[in-house]
Amino acid sequence: MGSQKALLVICDGMGDRVEREFEGETPLGFAKTPTFDRLASSGSVGLMDPIGPGVRPGSDYATTALLGYDPRVYYKGRGGLEAAGAGMDLRPGDVAFRCNFSTVADDLTVIDRRAGRIEHGTTQIADTVGKIRPRGVKELKIDFKATVAHRGVLILRGRGLSMMVSDVDPHRDGVKILKCEPLDDSTAAKRTARAVNDFVLQSLKMLKNHPVNIQRIREGKRPANIILPRGAGTLPLFKTLPDLYGVRVACIAAVALVKGACRLAGAELIPVEGASGGLDTNYEGKARAALKALEDHDLVILHVKATDVASHDGDFRKKASVIERIDAAIGMVTPSLDATSTYVIVTADHSTPVSVRDHSGNPVPLLINGPGIASSNVSKFSENAASRGNLGRLHGLDLMPIIADYLDKAKKLGF
Amino acid sequence: MGSQKALLVICDGMGDRVEREFEGETPLGFAKTPTFDRLASSGSVGLMDPIGPGVRPGSDYATTALLGYDPRVYYKGRGGLEAAGAGMDLRPGDVAFRCNFSTVADDLTVIDRRAGRIEHGTTQIADTVGKIRPRGVKELKIDFKATVAHRGVLILRGRGLSMMVSDVDPHRDGVKILKCEPLDDSTAAKRTARAVNDFVLQSLKMLKNHPVNIQRIREGKRPANIILPRGAGTLPLFKTLPDLYGVRVACIAAVALVKGACRLAGAELIPVEGASGGLDTNYEGKARAALKALEDHDLVILHVKATDVASHDGDFRKKASVIERIDAAIGMVTPSLDATSTYVIVTADHSTPVSVRDHSGNPVPLLINGPGIASSNVSKFSENAASRGNLGRLHGLDLMPIIADYLDKAKKLGF
Repeated sequence: MGSQKALLVICDGMGDRVEREFEGETPLGFAKTPTFDRLASSGSVGLMDPIGPGVRPGSDYATTALLGYDPRVYYKGRGGLEAAGAGMDLRPGDVAFRCNFSTVADDLTVIDRRAGRIEHGTTQIADTVGKIRPRGVKELKIDFKATVAHRGVLILRGRGLSMMVSDVDPHRDGVKILKCEPLDDSTAAKRTARAVNDFVLQSLKMLKNHPVNIQRIREGKRPANIILPRGAGTLPLFKTLPDLYGVRVACIAAVALVKGACRLAGAELIPVEGASGGLDTNYEGKARAALKALEDHDLVILHVKATDVASHDGDFRKKASVIERIDAAIGMVTPSLDATSTYVIVTADHSTPVSVRDHSGNPVPLLINGPGIASSNVSKFSENAASRGNLGRLHGLDLMPIIADYLDKAKKLGF
Repeated sequence: MGSQKALLVICDGMGDRVEREFEGETPLGFAKTPTFDRLASSGSVGLMDPIGPGVRPGSDYATTALLGYDPRVYYKGRGGLEAAGAGMDLRPGDVAFRCNFSTVADDLTVIDRRAGRIEHGTTQIADTVGKIRPRGVKELKIDFKATVAHRGVLILRGRGLSMMVSDVDPHRDGVKILKCEPLDDSTAAKRTARAVNDFVLQSLKMLKNHPVNIQRIREGKRPANIILPRGAGTLPLFKTLPDLYGVRVACIAAVALVKGACRLAGAELIPVEGASGGLDTNYEGKARAALKALEDHDLVILHVKATDVASHDGDFRKKASVIERIDAAIGMVTPSLDATSTYVIVTADHSTPVSVRDHSGNPVPLLINGPGIASSNVSKFSENAASRGNLGRLHGLDLMPIIADYLDKAKKLGF
């Protein structure tokens, strides 16, 4: 014992509800998944409630649970995970925000929350707004980073800040931007809201005639003339998986939130060319990167967002075909895994039924394959098969202790 | 209702993982267990996570849970359970230690942690070290008792003591004894560590020329020339099962920790000639004692350590054969039980896979047989059968409420 490895495949939002017109199956049950089926049959299957039965989690909230941290204790908002996922230096006391580069009219009505899906020039804009010193708050520092396309992250650093403030981004076009409001009576929340509002108005002033925007207007594109923060959050104080279990962990993911949660949990983030977080992601490249990462890591977390994207589109067949692409990519690398020492776990962070087009509280299917694991003998990996599986019904928080146990890294309680 | 009885058979570490070379079965699944199979088939079966999925418990920790006490709240270290198991008078505020009679060289290097597996004379040695008054700590009293072979228990009694101190026993031969260190910044921990260290050094001085040791050296045996404490613990404040449920409980066990936990839970400890805690234990004698104890107790807990011993040896066939011996011993007494009023529960406190040779986080199989219990119709009692059983997947803390319910001793919550 001692040299075991584990590959944890998380298919974002893969869990679903059955559809009568698809043989009473879910997209996973309907999809042709020879690799998952083989792993499920010679391994154990069951259902897992990411948080609890009927509870609807976001991907960040659910990933926190799957990593072994009770999100009711450790989840500290979106901003902190975004900042960590962007590789920024987030410290205790900082408050971070996910931001959009957006286009507003003079009366602050949002014309386009994504500034014409801006692709270039955001780094120069970030440099400019990074120089803003919000007024009315003493000794406040800021950090700003452009991440992917219209996305960025703002960090406020100073004494007496609070994540209990509302969003400036109104989450839809055609309405005015919102005023950041304190969500409790604390001085810290009031101070933070004041700083955010001043930052937003200063960004508007500094970006109106920014060279990148002058060029964009000249090209008939929408200018990124304002920064709209939302999702205030702080640093979640995880004790890392390496500290807890003595495991080396790698994460292969495109989504900033997931990357952030995994980075804070002590995972090395492994970039993959073409990993987009979209339907067109580099499935095979991610699987190959996972295989390589297993060489010098005990646990490799492979997260694929595409299943959730197809789910939000409400497209059953598209979701099934994304699942087939993931299955094929995993099937490409499983022959290279040492079956006597490698565990493969396939699951979802939450369900996103195509009929709901949003996250639901349904449990997700789970398979665990590896040495010493009892065979379920199911013929198909699906929610239906998992509901009668030999793992029973687990909680998301159970997953990491189970993996640590099979990696022989779990600590004994008592004698 | 009201005259129901229950026999709870706990096979220490019986739970296991499947092995390919043994037909994909565990030792329990592989063993010939006609009694367990009959009880399982006409009773209900399921899996039980002693603490939680993937969580690795020690026997003391797991037994605490199976008795119905959440060990995350009630488990207070090994020493307290050892003292209770030895029948000592442990009081709130006392700190107790499991101790070894050991042999050290002049430079305090451990030659033999078990002093040549000393069998005789430990009571005289215990009388001697029981007179030690550790210096530097005011009004400190001690109590010391020799238990079985090289084993003893030390109790420190006085104001301001703490269990947050480290072991003196280095847990292996050939290295120097350790200094007892405070594990937190409290004055109580520092004072306790000081007392322990002084006790150890005084024991060395008093035992050097102890008559028992002079005789042992003359006979070419290793002297028990020092006492090595470890596993500091305090009294866990259980509300007893008789108080909680109005049940009379008996415990038949050889292991001090289990005896201690059961005694603190209000069980009468019933000694059995030849119950050794080893592979050679008196299986039939324990089963007969359990049958007799059912005459005047509502719940009889029969604990067998041998399964865990075979597991730590990593011997699949030996473990299977120990399980067969337990099955035969139980089969010897079941015909004498009144099937219309007696429940038989068979389970393990935790899994100790032979492939791991240590406790694991795998769930344990559970069978409950008795009046009103649905038939599982499984053909074999095993982890595989239990994973598809009609009890689903339970937690260790669920067991005692279920037993109390069938004994008709559970209290109703609300109206």
